[in-house]
Amino acid sequence: MTDTIKKIKETAQNIFSKIKKKQKAEISAPVRSLNNVIYNPKDGYFELKGKLKKRTLTANTVKTFAQTLRFMALSKNLVETDDIATKREAYYVSKNWGEARFKEQAESDAVMDDIEAMFGTNREQLGFIADEHGGSVAGELIVIDKDPNTGKELKIDCTKFGSGSYSIPSDVENLKFETKAKFVLAIETNGMFERLNKHSYWKSSSCILVSMGGVPTRACRRFIRRLSDDANIPVFVFTDGDPYGFLNIYRTLKVGSGNAAHINEFFCVPKARFIGITPQDIIDYKLPTHPLKEVDIKRVKDGFKNDPFIHEHKLWQKALKDILKMGKRAEQQALAKHGLNFVVSNYLPEKLKDEKSWLE
Amino acid sequence: MTDTIKKIKETAQNIFSKIKKKQKAEISAPVRSLNNVIYNPKDGYFELKGKLKKRTLTANTVKTFAQTLRFMALSKNLVETDDIATKREAYYVSKNWGEARFKEQAESDAVMDDIEAMFGTNREQLGFIADEHGGSVAGELIVIDKDPNTGKELKIDCTKFGSGSYSIPSDVENLKFETKAKFVLAIETNGMFERLNKHSYWKSSSCILVSMGGVPTRACRRFIRRLSDDANIPVFVFTDGDPYGFLNIYRTLKVGSGNAAHINEFFCVPKARFIGITPQDIIDYKLPTHPLKEVDIKRVKDGFKNDPFIHEHKLWQKALKDILKMGKRAEQQALAKHGLNFVVSNYLPEKLKDEKSWLE
Repeated sequence: MTDTIKKIKETAQNIFSKIKKKQKAEISAPVRSLNNVIYNPKDGYFELKGKLKKRTLTANTVKTFAQTLRFMALSKNLVETDDIATKREAYYVSKNWGEARFKEQAESDAVMDDIEAMFGTNREQLGFIADEHGGSVAGELIVIDKDPNTGKELKIDCTKFGSGSYSIPSDVENLKFETKAKFVLAIETNGMFERLNKHSYWKSSSCILVSMGGVPTRACRRFIRRLSDDANIPVFVFTDGDPYGFLNIYRTLKVGSGNAAHINEFFCVPKARFIGITPQDIIDYKLPTHPLKEVDIKRVKDGFKNDPFIHEHKLWQKALKDILKMGKRAEQQALAKHGLNFVVSNYLPEKLKDEKSWLE
Repeated sequence: MTDTIKKIKETAQNIFSKIKKKQKAEISAPVRSLNNVIYNPKDGYFELKGKLKKRTLTANTVKTFAQTLRFMALSKNLVETDDIATKREAYYVSKNWGEARFKEQAESDAVMDDIEAMFGTNREQLGFIADEHGGSVAGELIVIDKDPNTGKELKIDCTKFGSGSYSIPSDVENLKFETKAKFVLAIETNGMFERLNKHSYWKSSSCILVSMGGVPTRACRRFIRRLSDDANIPVFVFTDGDPYGFLNIYRTLKVGSGNAAHINEFFCVPKARFIGITPQDIIDYKLPTHPLKEVDIKRVKDGFKNDPFIHEHKLWQKALKDILKMGKRAEQQALAKHGLNFVVSNYLPEKLKDEKSWLE
């Protein structure tokens, strides 16, 4: 965390000395948009190209300039006192900044994104958290945290939650891990997570179960990333067989998203492999299906046009073409047609064994 | 759980013997709609009046009749094997029932609601769970569950999760509790929950923090209800100061909802008191506000027309009239205007001390 403080201080001192010398003070941050993004499969995430957006202190920019500096001061204070603030709270804090206060949260969010990009770090390291649930965890993992009261180390054993589970906090930067698990299984729905937890699937297969509850939140993505790096184990992703599962959930977890390219480096999970329902599974397992929705079809077509991830991955191209041709989708719960625990006894073991069935 | 099995067997045997005697078999369940509901503040929830819907086995009803019996059989199996199924999974299981299979999940959901009402129990006791996150818990509470593997008792200490927390499972019927806490604090947003957890507010005020994440799920409501009964402690509810916080979150937690009247008995929390942002707080604490939205205004007006809860509670009538008059709403995060931890140092202690500020 001292790294963050150091960066903030350097930037502030630089501005201060320029102003004292009556030179034009400047701050610069990478342009955050799809046309400033490249995808390199080796690095494993959407990466920013070099384009910078400079903001020079003038009469026109003085308000945004002041807001940026105020936000930097707030961040410094948060990190120094080991506190946190949601984006919403940070917006309200600004209500005491006189003329520099934000009128809408959209303005303060944009400045926060700029600061994030400026320091080449993620918001959580600046003390800002998202106001969303970070996902649930059960299985062969000990999370090492500290008691906020005493500062003492705490070991949280995720095999000891019974039918419940460990709820991931918004800020996971300082967590450490101990595990002998062979892999992480990231699951789309909470219902499927509870089934696998109820049947101690994590024990029989020696893994760590994570419930994403739809598109994974920042905390959930960062948690899985840090865990897979630390333990050096693969991450298998188990979603519905539909474009939402393929592109919104899996692709976001694996490489990040286009409009947040400045932070994908921290949030992507290069070790992720897809073992969710594929078009081939729909045939092989004779799954009950639903017709594709308009929005599903549009998602795939847009993907072929714009998504560098799809352009790089031939197997995904085939899967997406197949699902368009079939015109059908199937949910992970559809496996229940063969019995509620077919997923435990057949589907997951078969998919995990058959490396050729994985999609990258 | 044997209670459930007993009820299922009795109903089934009754039908079986009628059919054998060539009499007309019948099943009956309470009518589930607002016009079959009364609100008795003493009982504390929307209650069903006596109206029954009977279904007699005829050529016309044979399919629904069969589906109901099939569902009862599935439930019996779930309870006997200590398994669970989401509504979605149950729907897919029916795909193997030949002519009795459901075409849409809406059909299977309706039959499940009927069975719930028929047996005067909640779905979870029949082995059916919701596919949703049940909320997070931190503080002075030990949850007693069992290891799904060994069946051994597990004690889950909610003071030992650091910045993380305990994630409530979908089925909380068999959990037990140990606590010396003075109250439960149920919080609208996850961000506020994390703030209070980060500052160990549960320690300084001897309480149990629950993050509802918006309108509480069934599991979250049932968890709070069972906990407040077991420990015999009050529940304070801390939401935004807007009609959504008042009526959708607080009212649902406290007395239940109109269209699920057959289960409110299990899900209402009579011990709940509102200590969230009131119209008076907006004035007293000089909070930053936003204008009421169309949907806020409609919600209040509809409430005055139809909601027996509002008709019973004079103080709520005043609060709702006040907020309409002001035309403004304020979020719980708005307290951050006075400093990020004003909520810990001032707001919560002041509200908890001043019993007159509570709304029932």
